Amino acid sequence: MTRITSVHNPRIKQAVRLRDGRARRRMGRMLIDGIREIDRANRSGIAIDQVYCCASDDRSTDESKLLQTLLDAGVSVFEVTEPVFQKLAFGQRTDGLVAVARTPAWELDRLKIPSAGLVAVLENVEKPGNVGAVLRSADAAGVAAVIVADESTDLFNPNAIRASLGAIFAVPVATAKGPEVLDWLRHHGFSIFAAWPNGENEYTQVSYDGRAALVLGNEAFGLSNLWQGSDITRIRIPMRGIVDSLNVSVTAAVLFYETLRQKSENARSGG
Amino acid sequence: MTRITSVHNPRIKQAVRLRDGRARRRMGRMLIDGIREIDRANRSGIAIDQVYCCASDDRSTDESKLLQTLLDAGVSVFEVTEPVFQKLAFGQRTDGLVAVARTPAWELDRLKIPSAGLVAVLENVEKPGNVGAVLRSADAAGVAAVIVADESTDLFNPNAIRASLGAIFAVPVATAKGPEVLDWLRHHGFSIFAAWPNGENEYTQVSYDGRAALVLGNEAFGLSNLWQGSDITRIRIPMRGIVDSLNVSVTAAVLFYETLRQKSENARSGG
Repeated sequence: MTRITSVHNPRIKQAVRLRDGRARRRMGRMLIDGIREIDRANRSGIAIDQVYCCASDDRSTDESKLLQTLLDAGVSVFEVTEPVFQKLAFGQRTDGLVAVARTPAWELDRLKIPSAGLVAVLENVEKPGNVGAVLRSADAAGVAAVIVADESTDLFNPNAIRASLGAIFAVPVATAKGPEVLDWLRHHGFSIFAAWPNGENEYTQVSYDGRAALVLGNEAFGLSNLWQGSDITRIRIPMRGIVDSLNVSVTAAVLFYETLRQKSENARSGG
Repeated sequence: MTRITSVHNPRIKQAVRLRDGRARRRMGRMLIDGIREIDRANRSGIAIDQVYCCASDDRSTDESKLLQTLLDAGVSVFEVTEPVFQKLAFGQRTDGLVAVARTPAWELDRLKIPSAGLVAVLENVEKPGNVGAVLRSADAAGVAAVIVADESTDLFNPNAIRASLGAIFAVPVATAKGPEVLDWLRHHGFSIFAAWPNGENEYTQVSYDGRAALVLGNEAFGLSNLWQGSDITRIRIPMRGIVDSLNVSVTAAVLFYETLRQKSENARSGG
């Protein structure tokens, strides 16, 4: 391991820049903070450029194993001083690992969706923590892909990566402009279900047979009018209390699992 | 309105103390931060002692209306300077309202549960944000009550209040020791369903007929052995990806809405 002791080291300065979304886009790189998250990225074939850690005598078994795996794979590992690590890591920490990795080019046409596959479409979901939480639930529910239908949502925000528990590297993800996503869904034979607070159909009263897309909008403003067409089924989750909405990651999970329930029931009944 | 200009004012010092859980318990008071949250507490009959705001020429309509309602109801409203407000409010804000209110005495025996009512039981859920998020989903799904089966969870933590969007004041809530909660559920004829990662029953394959209780455990360690008895059905949500758990508020919502779906379906089929 090479040692870095200065926060002015050019490599460190470049890595710190990746906290900014524009820099991530320009450089095609992201920061991954956390042993579990780096491990999952590595297992999913994400190219890891460098890994940074502090000198330590008491690494966890998981951490030591991962460091060895990365070293064996030829990844550059740098041991840095505490002030340097604190520049890179989130929270005032000196334990754990931080990696610089390449952001994969995830385009719509690279997605392979099975004939009864479910995809989730997110439009203008703003909080990275919500994006990450949706990805965690999507992974758990076996969603075939998550598509971000706008270019402002930053999938590789470190908070999104962390909130996903690394699932962001396991679930196939694509990004494209809204109209392109809609065309793609139509072209590939998806039934499209858009979550509207005043949707005509209760979400349990529609059938998610075949390829289905669930479309979810912004936390405060919901979906744009793009998701209003006559071939789009507007669904709602019933609200029985004083609050008028669910958190977007909760909405996503309730819809994912209802779709999964129906698909399992159809499979059980031989449908 | 009386004006307060010093952070050393005894009233302010006492209010600030309510950021601490022990002080809340000792004084039987809580801090409520936010217009919507105070409004919902007031509508739910929570006794509001005092309200604090900054001098301002551009209050929102909601804020002005609520202030007038509270003044009309005889609540003491204090106009405070910015440094004083920042001591009371969360985040470095000078807008909005902060209230001191009485924590209701919510005991198990005050709960009134309909014959097909659903209750949620939380054991050792640690993060106040998660407790609040569960309450938000419980309100949305029409859950009859949320019971906290331990004495460490602080329902009146300001972050729990905020994450609930004020639903904490709309959903009936009770707190008691675990064994007392279990006795109460048995005595009142509840079917008990405990969420275990390795539960024998998929959550969609059991019937939540009649009075049902869904029991959810700690974010990291799950439920204690109290929730293992022979009259307790252990349920699981299928995990199809690399992550091994859902967020507790997501788990809660998926289970609440499946119960609701079954109950609606039974009602529709005249069952």
